[in-house]
Amino acid sequence: MSVINEYLNQHQERFINELLELLRIPSVSADSKYSQDVIRTAEKVKEFLQEAGADNVELLQTEGFPVVYGEKIIDPALPTVIVYGHYDVQPPDPINLWDSPPFEPVIKDGNIYARGAADDKGQFFMHVKAFELMNRTNTLSCNVKFMIEGEEEVGSENLGTFLEKNKERYQGDVILISDTSLIANDVPSLTVGLRGLSYVEVEVTGPNIDLHSGVYGGAVANPVNVLCTMIASLHDENRKITIPGFYDDVIEVSAADRAKMAETPFSLEEYKRDLNIDDVMGESGYSTIERASIRPTLDVNGIWGGYIGEGAKTVLPSKAFAKISMRLVPGQDPDKITELFARHFKSIAPASVKVEVRPHHGGKPVVTPTDTNEYKAAAMAMNTTFGKEPIPARGGGSIPIVALFEEVLGLKSVLMGFGLDSDAIHSPNEKYGIFNYLKGIETIPHFFHNYAELKK
Amino acid sequence: MSVINEYLNQHQERFINELLELLRIPSVSADSKYSQDVIRTAEKVKEFLQEAGADNVELLQTEGFPVVYGEKIIDPALPTVIVYGHYDVQPPDPINLWDSPPFEPVIKDGNIYARGAADDKGQFFMHVKAFELMNRTNTLSCNVKFMIEGEEEVGSENLGTFLEKNKERYQGDVILISDTSLIANDVPSLTVGLRGLSYVEVEVTGPNIDLHSGVYGGAVANPVNVLCTMIASLHDENRKITIPGFYDDVIEVSAADRAKMAETPFSLEEYKRDLNIDDVMGESGYSTIERASIRPTLDVNGIWGGYIGEGAKTVLPSKAFAKISMRLVPGQDPDKITELFARHFKSIAPASVKVEVRPHHGGKPVVTPTDTNEYKAAAMAMNTTFGKEPIPARGGGSIPIVALFEEVLGLKSVLMGFGLDSDAIHSPNEKYGIFNYLKGIETIPHFFHNYAELKK
Repeated sequence: MSVINEYLNQHQERFINELLELLRIPSVSADSKYSQDVIRTAEKVKEFLQEAGADNVELLQTEGFPVVYGEKIIDPALPTVIVYGHYDVQPPDPINLWDSPPFEPVIKDGNIYARGAADDKGQFFMHVKAFELMNRTNTLSCNVKFMIEGEEEVGSENLGTFLEKNKERYQGDVILISDTSLIANDVPSLTVGLRGLSYVEVEVTGPNIDLHSGVYGGAVANPVNVLCTMIASLHDENRKITIPGFYDDVIEVSAADRAKMAETPFSLEEYKRDLNIDDVMGESGYSTIERASIRPTLDVNGIWGGYIGEGAKTVLPSKAFAKISMRLVPGQDPDKITELFARHFKSIAPASVKVEVRPHHGGKPVVTPTDTNEYKAAAMAMNTTFGKEPIPARGGGSIPIVALFEEVLGLKSVLMGFGLDSDAIHSPNEKYGIFNYLKGIETIPHFFHNYAELKK
Repeated sequence: MSVINEYLNQHQERFINELLELLRIPSVSADSKYSQDVIRTAEKVKEFLQEAGADNVELLQTEGFPVVYGEKIIDPALPTVIVYGHYDVQPPDPINLWDSPPFEPVIKDGNIYARGAADDKGQFFMHVKAFELMNRTNTLSCNVKFMIEGEEEVGSENLGTFLEKNKERYQGDVILISDTSLIANDVPSLTVGLRGLSYVEVEVTGPNIDLHSGVYGGAVANPVNVLCTMIASLHDENRKITIPGFYDDVIEVSAADRAKMAETPFSLEEYKRDLNIDDVMGESGYSTIERASIRPTLDVNGIWGGYIGEGAKTVLPSKAFAKISMRLVPGQDPDKITELFARHFKSIAPASVKVEVRPHHGGKPVVTPTDTNEYKAAAMAMNTTFGKEPIPARGGGSIPIVALFEEVLGLKSVLMGFGLDSDAIHSPNEKYGIFNYLKGIETIPHFFHNYAELKK
C-alpha cells in the first residue's frame, strides 16, 4: 500500500494546516459564551467532510449541539465502519498557565500546541484525512459513516436519545474511535478497557449563617473541618476506598493479565520527573500502571467553602462543598456506586451537620475482547505502520459513549488512539505530536483494509 | 444621677439618628475600593467628638487609616480614662443574604440592622454620646481621651507603631472598651478573658499541572484529598487538637472558676435552635460555653482547590489551599503556636506532595483580674443600671490590641461591651439593639463616677 505513503507525503503540509484551521475555533461546549463557535466548528467539519468526498453530509440536530454526519457507501455487501469523534473541547482554564494562547495553535519541537490538539480534534481529523486519502486513491475497502459530536466534554448527555432516533442511519459493523493514547511513540498500544465514572457533588451545612469563629469556634461543628474528616475517611491507610460494597462487583484482573501488564515499558523515575513529584501514592499491592487503569479510584475534583479571598477572615462558614468522582472498573455499575456513595456519605456525617449528595453524569466501564476481527484488524494495522505488535492496554479514563454504542446500536468499539499521556489534555499547553497525527492517518487505511479482509 | 436619665430621655432620638448617619458610610477597611469611605468615616467621628465638646480633636496619622483623637482634661489630678473603639467594619459579603442593604440601616423590632451596628460603630459611639451627656450636664468625673481607630478589622497592624509614637499623648489610668457582648439583656456580664489568635494559610502542591483524573487518578496523590486528610488529622476523636505541644502552655481554669461558669444562664436548646443545628460539636469534657471561651480551637476559615465552577470537570488538581485559624487561651503564645503548627503540618505531609505554611496576623490571649478598681467600677455601674451584679465571663473572640495596651502603655483594659452573641457581627444582617445602645450610654457615666471615687 505504498500509495498511502505517497499521497500522505504529497499532502501532509495541507493536512497539518487544515487541522490548525480547526483548532483556531474555540469550541468549548461547557461555556455558553462559546456556543456560536461550537456551531461554527460543526459547520467547518461538515465542509471538510464534503471536500474529502463524503456523501449526504449534514448536521444532525440533537437537544444540544449537532452531530456531523457523512457517509460513503461503496458496496452494501462490504462491512461498514462507523467513525466516532468529537469536535468540542475542554475549557482552556487556567489560561494564564498557557505558554501560547490556547486557540492560536503553534508548532514547536514537532508538536502542535492548542486546546483540542489531541482531545479530540487532532485525533478525529486523522479519520477525515485518511478517508480523503482512501477515497482519492481508490483504496477505500469498507463503507464508512461519520458521527462527530459536539458534547463529549459535557458528558454526551443528548447522545443516548440521538442514537435511539438514528438507529437505522447508524447500522454498521464496528465503531472506530481515536480518543485514547499510545504507551509511547515506540510502544504502540490499543486500549482494551476504560474506567467508568460516578461523579457527585456534596454539600455540608453546619450553622444557618456564617458565624464569627471566635464567638462560636470550638463549640459549633465547622462544615469545612467536618467535610475534610468525611473525605479523609473515604480511604483507609492502604488507600482502599472504605465505602461498604464499593469493591463487591469488581471483576479482578487475572494474575496472567497482570503479569502481562507488568511487562509494559514504564519508568517510574520519568513519570515522577514529568509531574515534578517526589513520590506516587495509591492502593497498596498495585503498580502505578495498575492503579491508573485496572483499579477503581476516588478523587476530589474540586472543594470550596468559607472565605477564599485575600488576607484573613475569621469566619466559621455555614457551608462547604466538594465535587467528588470515582473511576470504576469492569463489574461496577455507576448508578449503584453513586447510590452506595450517597448512602455511606450521609451515614458518616455527624449529627451536627446536614449533608446533601447530588449526582452528576456517570459512565459505565468497558472491556474489549482481543480475539475479534476488529481488534485483530487494528493490531495488524499498527504492526504494519509501527513495525511492532501493539500492547493491549487498559486506559484509566472514561468514554461513556462506548457502553452506549453497545447498548443502543449493539456494536463493539475499537479504541485506536494515537495520543500520549503527556499530551496534557484537559490541562494548559495541550499538544499533539505531528508524528502521531501523520502516523494515525497512515494507520487508519490499513485498519479498513484488514477489516474488510477478515470479514470476508 | 437622675440627670443622666433625664438628658438621655430628651436626646435619645437624636442619639439614634446620629448613629444611623455613621452606619451609612461603608467603612470597610479590608477592601481598598472603600478607602475614601473609611477616611470619610474618620472625619465624621471627628465632627461628632467636636460637637460633643471634646478638645484638641484631630486625625492622628498612622501607616494606614487614621486614629481619631479627642480629649477633655478637667483636672490633671483626676484619673484619665482612655476610650478605645474602631470605626472600620467587616466586609458585608455575602451581600445577597442580607434582608436589607448593609449600609442602609433599618430599625425593626427594636434593633438597628446594618454592617457595623454592633461591631463597633454602635458600641464606640455610646462613649461619644455618654461623653456629650456628662460634658453638657457637668457630671464628667474623670479626664477622658479617645482613641478610635480604623484598622481593627484588618488586624490593627499599624497600632503598635502608632502607640509607641503616641505614648506621651496616651498617658492615663485605664482603657475602656465596648466591643464585646452581654450574656443576655437580663444577664449582664463583663468580659474578663479573650482568646488569642494564630492564623495561617496552607498550600499543598501535588503534580506540577492539573491532570486528567482518569489518566492519573489513583496513581498520583490528589492534593485536595491529601489536604483533607491532613486537616482531619489535626483533631482526635475527642476533638482535641493533635499538634504536639499545642496544649503545653495552657493555663487550666480552676475547678472553682469552672463551677462558677456553669452557673451562667444558658439554654443549649435555644442555642441550637438559633443556629438551626441538631447537635453541637466540641472537645470532650467541656461544656459549650467552655468550648467557646476557655479552650483553644482550630477552625478552617476557608478552603479551595480544583474545579469549583458549575457542572463536572474531571480534574486531578495541582494545588489545594486552606485558611486555618487557632483561637488561643491564656498561656499560649501566638508565635510559638504558629511555629508548632507549621512544623507539625509539614511533618504529616506525605512525600507525594509539597506543603507551604504562610502565617497571617496573630494576637495574644488576655485575662483581666476582677479585684481591680476598674473592674469594680464597671461591675458597680452595671449593677446600678441593670439591677444585677454582672457575671465575669470569658469571651471566645480576640481583641489583639488589649495585650498591646498592656505592653506599650502599661495599662489594663476594661471590656464593658453591650452587644449580644446573636448580633451577627461579621455575618449578614448584623444588628444592635436600641435597648443595648441606650443602656450602654446610661451605664458609662456610672463607670466614670465609680472609677473616680475608687481612685480617691
